[in-house]
Amino acid sequence: MGLHPIMPVPVRKDLTAYLVERAALIDRWLDELVRPPERTPAPRLWEAMRYSLLAPGKRFRPVLMLAVGETFGTEMERYRYSACAIECIHTYSLIHDDLPAMDNDTLRRGRPACHVRFGEAMAILAGDALLTYAFELLGRCPFLNAHPAIGLEVMRILALRAGLSGMVVGQVLDLEAEGRPVDAAHVQRIHRYKTAALITAACEIGGKIAQVEPRVQQALQAYGEALGIAFQIVDDILDVTQTSQVLGKTAGKDVQTMKATYPRAVGLDRAREEAIRWRERAKAAVTAWDRKGLLHALADRVTERIA
Amino acid sequence: MGLHPIMPVPVRKDLTAYLVERAALIDRWLDELVRPPERTPAPRLWEAMRYSLLAPGKRFRPVLMLAVGETFGTEMERYRYSACAIECIHTYSLIHDDLPAMDNDTLRRGRPACHVRFGEAMAILAGDALLTYAFELLGRCPFLNAHPAIGLEVMRILALRAGLSGMVVGQVLDLEAEGRPVDAAHVQRIHRYKTAALITAACEIGGKIAQVEPRVQQALQAYGEALGIAFQIVDDILDVTQTSQVLGKTAGKDVQTMKATYPRAVGLDRAREEAIRWRERAKAAVTAWDRKGLLHALADRVTERIA
Repeated sequence: MGLHPIMPVPVRKDLTAYLVERAALIDRWLDELVRPPERTPAPRLWEAMRYSLLAPGKRFRPVLMLAVGETFGTEMERYRYSACAIECIHTYSLIHDDLPAMDNDTLRRGRPACHVRFGEAMAILAGDALLTYAFELLGRCPFLNAHPAIGLEVMRILALRAGLSGMVVGQVLDLEAEGRPVDAAHVQRIHRYKTAALITAACEIGGKIAQVEPRVQQALQAYGEALGIAFQIVDDILDVTQTSQVLGKTAGKDVQTMKATYPRAVGLDRAREEAIRWRERAKAAVTAWDRKGLLHALADRVTERIA
Repeated sequence: MGLHPIMPVPVRKDLTAYLVERAALIDRWLDELVRPPERTPAPRLWEAMRYSLLAPGKRFRPVLMLAVGETFGTEMERYRYSACAIECIHTYSLIHDDLPAMDNDTLRRGRPACHVRFGEAMAILAGDALLTYAFELLGRCPFLNAHPAIGLEVMRILALRAGLSGMVVGQVLDLEAEGRPVDAAHVQRIHRYKTAALITAACEIGGKIAQVEPRVQQALQAYGEALGIAFQIVDDILDVTQTSQVLGKTAGKDVQTMKATYPRAVGLDRAREEAIRWRERAKAAVTAWDRKGLLHALADRVTERIA
């Protein structure tokens, strides 16, 4: 923690303004770093990638990564490539999840899904390209090239949490549970892999690049896991209670396809309680050193929409 | 080149026996390294990955990587994780290429394609998992962890050549060219991205891990590119001249779908000439230091089946 000078950060009275500003920074970085070379032979592939990547989004994972960095006074510039990499991974997962063979969804981030707009083959390839590009970005990151041991760790975290110790496994569990009876423990396991893993990666990479001590790194992991589960429970609740217009994706889809969700397993009221419980666990994990209160504030923000 | 002790390597009189032995070594490594943890929550995902990955194959890319290492007397053990990583990438590309929305192929490596056996959703996810796992393997490689700067370079090479400076772009070009008139230059460009890029990566990673000098590294790149183009021309010729039984995949598929191939662009005879020409270019690139003749022998082997 004491490794780097704490940069002066104005007290964030207005969290919303802060989040909007950070998301705009991520949008600028994405627009600059995920851009075709001048004479690309595959302009339509890049178009499909950018169509999905730059569609309006909260940029929750990269913003969280920056918030961790800010908590330890790390220069934001260090995170430029890694923050874009995690958003590329997140976007690839949305594109592939929406495919007809998977969730068969047509609306995403308020726009037609990638395969609706560009065709199924191009959507598969745009997803593959974004996933691969995430690692290309890590390989091009000046900070990670100056600190290659951290670079390898960031790569490993991203690969584990996006893949076989995380997201892809979660996607399989999610599909396998469709239409079957599920209890809370089962849903929690799915959430942990499907959603919490990549949110945890955002926190872990934030910590690695800030070069925090091992015990802080562990706390960040615990924070990310709990926050990620809270995040997915809220997402499931909103699927039931909000309109497609508000969500930017098809509402009521979970009920229709009998997804494994907390509302289905334990009802809406207990689902709300569970979300709050996981939010409190997240806060407890970092309470000793979240001096700016930023990580607490983010956790509160996640559950605000179901208050 | 002189950085490491040259390990005693018996003169390889019988190239076939050598290639079989190396492929068997790769098979062993794959079986050991691509294996589910004891209590995986997604056994079927692992089954689908291993079904495609461990199906009989020549293991051309990892064997080529080892041959480069052997040329410089590098211990084979250093390549264990990287060799498996490149085969994971290759296999993921086969799984996704065979999908109904892409080439819609049902036979691969002599078996039903992954999506035929496990369903389309699982095949998409098994491909995603293998692609991601390639980078997890790099992150777990003891040699690369001891030499993280090389680790980052290997990651960058793999990501570039598998992604937007290589294979994924090639796949897009390949699909876009289907059914359209193509000339030799166009086909060559497609081959360069679709096939030669990953074969080049095998050579480049071979060189990086052997810690060769920059001019040798450049020569390895030139060798890989030329060899890769020769390899794809041969593949296209065999698609026309061989049976599905011999190929282990549906023969005649290229003609049926009007793929952009040399045989279609310039006819079989000129296609054969082109393959030979690229093979000779490959050999010329490495002739100054291919002391064991292994890289020459591999190049000859690639075009042997169209002799």
